[in-house]
Amino acid sequence: MDSEQAEPTKDGEFSRDMRYIPTRITADGRDGYPVEADRYRLVIARACPWANRAAIVRRLLGLEPVLSMGICGPVHDERSWTFDLDPGGVDPVLRIPRLRDAYLARFPDYSLGITVPAIVDIPTGQVVTNDFPSITLDLGTEWSQFHRDGAPDLYPEDRRDEIDEVAERVFVDVNNGVYQCGFAGSQDAYERAYDQLFARLDWLEERLTRQRYLVGDSITEADVRLFTTLVRFDAVYHGHFKCNRSKLSEMPALWAYTRDLFQTPGFGDTIDFAQIKEHYYVVHTSINPTQIVPKGPDLANWWTPHHRDGMGGRPFGDGTPPGPPPADERVPSYGESAVS
Amino acid sequence: MDSEQAEPTKDGEFSRDMRYIPTRITADGRDGYPVEADRYRLVIARACPWANRAAIVRRLLGLEPVLSMGICGPVHDERSWTFDLDPGGVDPVLRIPRLRDAYLARFPDYSLGITVPAIVDIPTGQVVTNDFPSITLDLGTEWSQFHRDGAPDLYPEDRRDEIDEVAERVFVDVNNGVYQCGFAGSQDAYERAYDQLFARLDWLEERLTRQRYLVGDSITEADVRLFTTLVRFDAVYHGHFKCNRSKLSEMPALWAYTRDLFQTPGFGDTIDFAQIKEHYYVVHTSINPTQIVPKGPDLANWWTPHHRDGMGGRPFGDGTPPGPPPADERVPSYGESAVS
Repeated sequence: MDSEQAEPTKDGEFSRDMRYIPTRITADGRDGYPVEADRYRLVIARACPWANRAAIVRRLLGLEPVLSMGICGPVHDERSWTFDLDPGGVDPVLRIPRLRDAYLARFPDYSLGITVPAIVDIPTGQVVTNDFPSITLDLGTEWSQFHRDGAPDLYPEDRRDEIDEVAERVFVDVNNGVYQCGFAGSQDAYERAYDQLFARLDWLEERLTRQRYLVGDSITEADVRLFTTLVRFDAVYHGHFKCNRSKLSEMPALWAYTRDLFQTPGFGDTIDFAQIKEHYYVVHTSINPTQIVPKGPDLANWWTPHHRDGMGGRPFGDGTPPGPPPADERVPSYGESAVS
Repeated sequence: MDSEQAEPTKDGEFSRDMRYIPTRITADGRDGYPVEADRYRLVIARACPWANRAAIVRRLLGLEPVLSMGICGPVHDERSWTFDLDPGGVDPVLRIPRLRDAYLARFPDYSLGITVPAIVDIPTGQVVTNDFPSITLDLGTEWSQFHRDGAPDLYPEDRRDEIDEVAERVFVDVNNGVYQCGFAGSQDAYERAYDQLFARLDWLEERLTRQRYLVGDSITEADVRLFTTLVRFDAVYHGHFKCNRSKLSEMPALWAYTRDLFQTPGFGDTIDFAQIKEHYYVVHTSINPTQIVPKGPDLANWWTPHHRDGMGGRPFGDGTPPGPPPADERVPSYGESAVS
């Protein structure tokens, strides 16, 4: 996803265009796209929190062998995310330089934002969907025949109402709330978004003081969705988006909770802080015209003990953690500071 | 002082124009301006760290009854600091709307920056000096006949070499260093300034772990000069100038040291965080084009116990703390959070 889809409205409030391609990849193939091994390619950017959800869920469920992943660079041009990290600037599977090409292959007049995550049908080169909330839920439910042994149930039937409710609050006030702070068109709109964000973070802080995970005693979709914003908080949102009542590292339960997940296989190993910072600070020239990328914050503290295991909880329920990521998907910096 | 005097040079480094009006007000009046009660007006802005030095020294020495003070608003126009906080937008003593008028009264073709602090000769309405490093030293040494009973010696003869040496390092790497981070014209120049700043802060952190004040065991000019930058660090420099390896509040000795001074009469009672934030975020449109002012950080923690008195030291040497500021110079918000 990206800010290119959004402009402040008249009262200064940032409004996210939520029109996504609603096609779904399902077990029964009712939209014409049945779940199938090696047919689709998930396209993400390490920078993007919405794409990060899909990368994490794919890792947790062990879908790497059947659903390959293309990775766009952190800095896109004005029209599209691009595959500038790949040799020759071309995705090695889709053979396109820009994600936009896959959108236009299916919709020649496509006029909305070219966003990640997107899933592309490899044989036709056409985008199937970029509807990020459905993508992760479908990976969890529709793709179950391909889940690894020991994959967790991220969206357990008896907890769906609670997961949906928490995720909705987190989406409005936190996931999207940080953007409403950063892209507010007026002081008033900014302050409203700031108050709403920190009220919700206080609510989450209180909840996570009492329990290890957001819903139940295992990792769920709700945790994935909260994590991708929190992990970017001090590196980007605190300064760049003026979400500066306090750093994440000054909210004890939230900070320990985020470190707990960061140190869990499938979460932290999807995070590339350098790409995250480069994306926000270079792309958003309306709020950072110099495009200078802050050198801070110090990241060594991500590896400090979180002591959340003392609260009980079973991260993967009856399942097990995923193994390490495929060699060509490893983030070079991950784990570096763990050693030092 | 203000950024209007400075532009990045070719290699991207911010370079401060250090040409100030060198006239001095002295006991012997050798420049034509003898120290005299009620003859001069010190002009500051609460926002400005360089002017803040003069406001603090005047308070510590008890010069309020003989040297009055005019206060410019936080947001100046492109040509000058203005007296927009005063009734009718005119300084009640100098009877001018803009500080520039006092500069032009003496130098009709004055082409350098219109900076605070400045001292104006009231009878002629002419600026005498804006040479900020000399202003505070002269208040401490040349104005001694008017010092209050119990005024501290901020520039003791037997410590001057050490004070000068520490102050020079603090000036280059910290006072001016934060501006070099914020106004760097290239990523390289920014990163050099950032490294230099935090190396110096580490050096200061280490020094202040061992001793309560920077030089000797009492407050000196060196502490005044460091304080005015540190007190603005989390509110402005951390985010706005990208000095974000860590917050001041994450450097234990420096943070306790700054709170110690903040809670000392003459220091914190000169600080107006709202004006400080408004100045930087509204005036510097080249780095904050939206002019939105961050609502954070939370300031309540300025009043938490600092425990520095346990290290010994005599804040005012053989002297005593100053009384409260004159009624018309009180910062309304000061002490508010101490009560809550």
